[in-house]
Amino acid sequence: MSAYEELESRFKRLSHFEHALTILHWDQEVMMPPKGAETRGQAIAELSAFHHQEMTSSDMAGLIEQAKRQIGLNDWQSANLREIERVWQDANLLPEELVREQSIAQQRCQHAWRTQRKENDWAGFKENFKAVVELSRQQANIRQKALGTATAYDALLSLYSTGDSSELIAEVFTKLKSELPAMIQAVTARQGDSARPSFTGPFDVASQRTLSHHVMDFLGFDFDAGRLDESTHPFSTGNFLDQRITTRFNTDEFIEALYATIHETGHSRYEAGRPQEWYGQPVGSARNMSIHESQSLFFEKHIGCSKGFSEFLAGRSSEAFELASPLDPEHFLQAVTWVEPGLIRVNADELTYPIHIIVRFEIESALINGEMEIDDIPGAWHEKMQNYLGLGTENNYRDGCLQDIHWPMGAFGYFPSYTLGAVNAAQLRLAMEKQVGNLDDIIRSGNIEPISQWLSERIWQVGSQLESQDIIQQATGKKTDAQSLIDHFVVRYQLD
Amino acid sequence: MSAYEELESRFKRLSHFEHALTILHWDQEVMMPPKGAETRGQAIAELSAFHHQEMTSSDMAGLIEQAKRQIGLNDWQSANLREIERVWQDANLLPEELVREQSIAQQRCQHAWRTQRKENDWAGFKENFKAVVELSRQQANIRQKALGTATAYDALLSLYSTGDSSELIAEVFTKLKSELPAMIQAVTARQGDSARPSFTGPFDVASQRTLSHHVMDFLGFDFDAGRLDESTHPFSTGNFLDQRITTRFNTDEFIEALYATIHETGHSRYEAGRPQEWYGQPVGSARNMSIHESQSLFFEKHIGCSKGFSEFLAGRSSEAFELASPLDPEHFLQAVTWVEPGLIRVNADELTYPIHIIVRFEIESALINGEMEIDDIPGAWHEKMQNYLGLGTENNYRDGCLQDIHWPMGAFGYFPSYTLGAVNAAQLRLAMEKQVGNLDDIIRSGNIEPISQWLSERIWQVGSQLESQDIIQQATGKKTDAQSLIDHFVVRYQLD
Repeated sequence: MSAYEELESRFKRLSHFEHALTILHWDQEVMMPPKGAETRGQAIAELSAFHHQEMTSSDMAGLIEQAKRQIGLNDWQSANLREIERVWQDANLLPEELVREQSIAQQRCQHAWRTQRKENDWAGFKENFKAVVELSRQQANIRQKALGTATAYDALLSLYSTGDSSELIAEVFTKLKSELPAMIQAVTARQGDSARPSFTGPFDVASQRTLSHHVMDFLGFDFDAGRLDESTHPFSTGNFLDQRITTRFNTDEFIEALYATIHETGHSRYEAGRPQEWYGQPVGSARNMSIHESQSLFFEKHIGCSKGFSEFLAGRSSEAFELASPLDPEHFLQAVTWVEPGLIRVNADELTYPIHIIVRFEIESALINGEMEIDDIPGAWHEKMQNYLGLGTENNYRDGCLQDIHWPMGAFGYFPSYTLGAVNAAQLRLAMEKQVGNLDDIIRSGNIEPISQWLSERIWQVGSQLESQDIIQQATGKKTDAQSLIDHFVVRYQLD
Repeated sequence: MSAYEELESRFKRLSHFEHALTILHWDQEVMMPPKGAETRGQAIAELSAFHHQEMTSSDMAGLIEQAKRQIGLNDWQSANLREIERVWQDANLLPEELVREQSIAQQRCQHAWRTQRKENDWAGFKENFKAVVELSRQQANIRQKALGTATAYDALLSLYSTGDSSELIAEVFTKLKSELPAMIQAVTARQGDSARPSFTGPFDVASQRTLSHHVMDFLGFDFDAGRLDESTHPFSTGNFLDQRITTRFNTDEFIEALYATIHETGHSRYEAGRPQEWYGQPVGSARNMSIHESQSLFFEKHIGCSKGFSEFLAGRSSEAFELASPLDPEHFLQAVTWVEPGLIRVNADELTYPIHIIVRFEIESALINGEMEIDDIPGAWHEKMQNYLGLGTENNYRDGCLQDIHWPMGAFGYFPSYTLGAVNAAQLRLAMEKQVGNLDDIIRSGNIEPISQWLSERIWQVGSQLESQDIIQQATGKKTDAQSLIDHFVVRYQLD
């Protein structure tokens, strides 16, 4: 067996342990009774430790070096070797001691945060947060040195938006920051004093579940290779032949759960659509979070918020809830595209969402690069929210810098992928329409296969063979460009 | 770390992998979409291989030998070491090649059997079954040589009814065989031409589920540490803080599903009730299948078929199904204790069930010990069923020797545990009543805690500290004795 073959076989083997971990985690969130937590935690820790041990086995470096000198590898194999090295490097870069300290500090900070957020307790939060930031800075510095990234923050970005630099992100965000405030103002001015359209419930869970199934079916989800369940926070996981997505039903209104389902279905189609022959190999993995999010947002915002889809949905919702008079698709579309600036990111609409991300990006990049300290965060947050969105957060930490779990858990560098995903989705849509025709017409035909086909060839089937920006460049003719999202908003909100 | 401590730590670690495998299997039966089978199979195979590799690691024998010379081990530790050696021996006795061949032959035979049974195709079945029997005989011979059991068959028995010899079983079964036919005749004669009492449906699944939950609650199942789901065949699995039991609902009638639930709840209480401090260690495991089955049958037959329980159930069933007039408890009790000789084991009532097991025991022990050949099976089956139950199976392989999955999957030696369990359950009941009073009165009080407490101290909390017959002896004052079951039947069917 050649060194490369040996590596393939090891990663295949590791993927089986990853599948086991996936199911253990899914079960924990969706099925496990509360008292099962401790023994489950032990089992997950044991399997993870074994996985880490295999990944850091002392002969891996040598195998990778040997494989790199091997001749006759084809393009996919070479790309796989590049990704193998990347995954291996991520697992081996940090001293075990730092990994352990980070895990402890993050668990502690995260746990306390759940209470501190409710109590608006910034002072208490800071006490635990100090260690999280300090250790993340160490992590970033070690990674920067090894990977040669432009900044320390870039070295954390590479864990999520792998291949997208902070330079590119800053360029995209600067453009958005200069255009969005005026657009938001124009749309809210037009909406005037009206309230967001809503529908009167209650909407029973069984009917919502049926509706979700109809919608997933329409979106090409294969129920012989996946299932929909419920959990506190919607997520998607599993493997290409066993997709697990979740949503969260609420009987007062059905739109939030339904669009969570649509969003997760987008993630799931990307997972299920990657090249099967590369299952278990790093090159067969999702490229990064900006690409992943582009697929979920493509489904949620471009398919799910189209006129054609709103007509389909209005009919199916009326059926599912056995309404006396059918829902109005126009009304529906207004509800799901309504713009309303607010303090909370997860409640934000499509137009104001990027602002929330820009605020976080500017703060966390400065923090990790040592240009800002923890004590400066609340002030910076207030100022930026005030400037970009007209909403201050003075002394309101709960709805300001304490609102997200990402920082307490040390996930610095994650946020940008949400908005990069939104830009990528808009850019893919524009490119797709040039080739396969008007998206709305396709959706109205009742068969989204041409859309799936196009995404499959350009995104899903590429896996991690190309770098993130090369995938976007190849699919759309250019790198991630803020103008795509702006153009999309101009059409969506008739702003020209 | 002493050799003994090292062993404890290894088995603890292995138990985490066992938990992962448990959840992967449960998910496969209960949750997994059909297309997930292949990758799930690969993951299970990989984790099992890893488990086996650790269990057969070359230094284990030395560690066990060292630990055996260690002084200062307490009773539990010594018992644990004895069980560690037993588990280790079971995993190491057979040549890898034989294990692989058995797995292939059993998979093939089992797969073909699903069709062959339907088609009554004994000739076709025999072709695959030959290899299964031949390899099981090899397995039995190797195990006999290493364990020093009286017969080859005993060496397979020890995999399931660990510690119960074929001599003891033969003694129990001979007694049952001599008494049961007359008892069956007396009961069926009294029942006369009446049909088994039944209840008119349909019984919707949601109501059946609610009823099952009420019953499990009554039986002391902790829903914070377990759940009830549905699967093709009812089973129970999980760990002491995360019990997973399943049943199978049918809208035509509700008793079968309900009693499957009660049966599995019995298994589950034994699992959940073992000593927590020994979780993950062999001494903390279930003693064997005869003890396990004694607990499920105690719950199903002694609690579930009592007058007090029938009153509780009649009330709860009427509520759950919103019946116009309440169910009659007497009618209920008649339905669940009705006697009706038949060809199919899994449909058999309490009184005729042992006959089905005796037929199988006599055939499989002779087959494994080389005193019978495959071609003799249908004739022997027909003759025994005719003699013991008055029902022949000539040319009816489907409802005769082809009816069970146990033999195609090579599980020779498993069957006796069903009836040993039934005898043990009756014996425990008699002993318990002498100490805590009439079972029916306790159940009627609505609080079965005294029953749980008694079983917990004598069975659950003992784990595998004692051998099977020592557990029964200590709890009831004698070894497994057929007379206990006969006495129980005399009372149940008023036969004195």
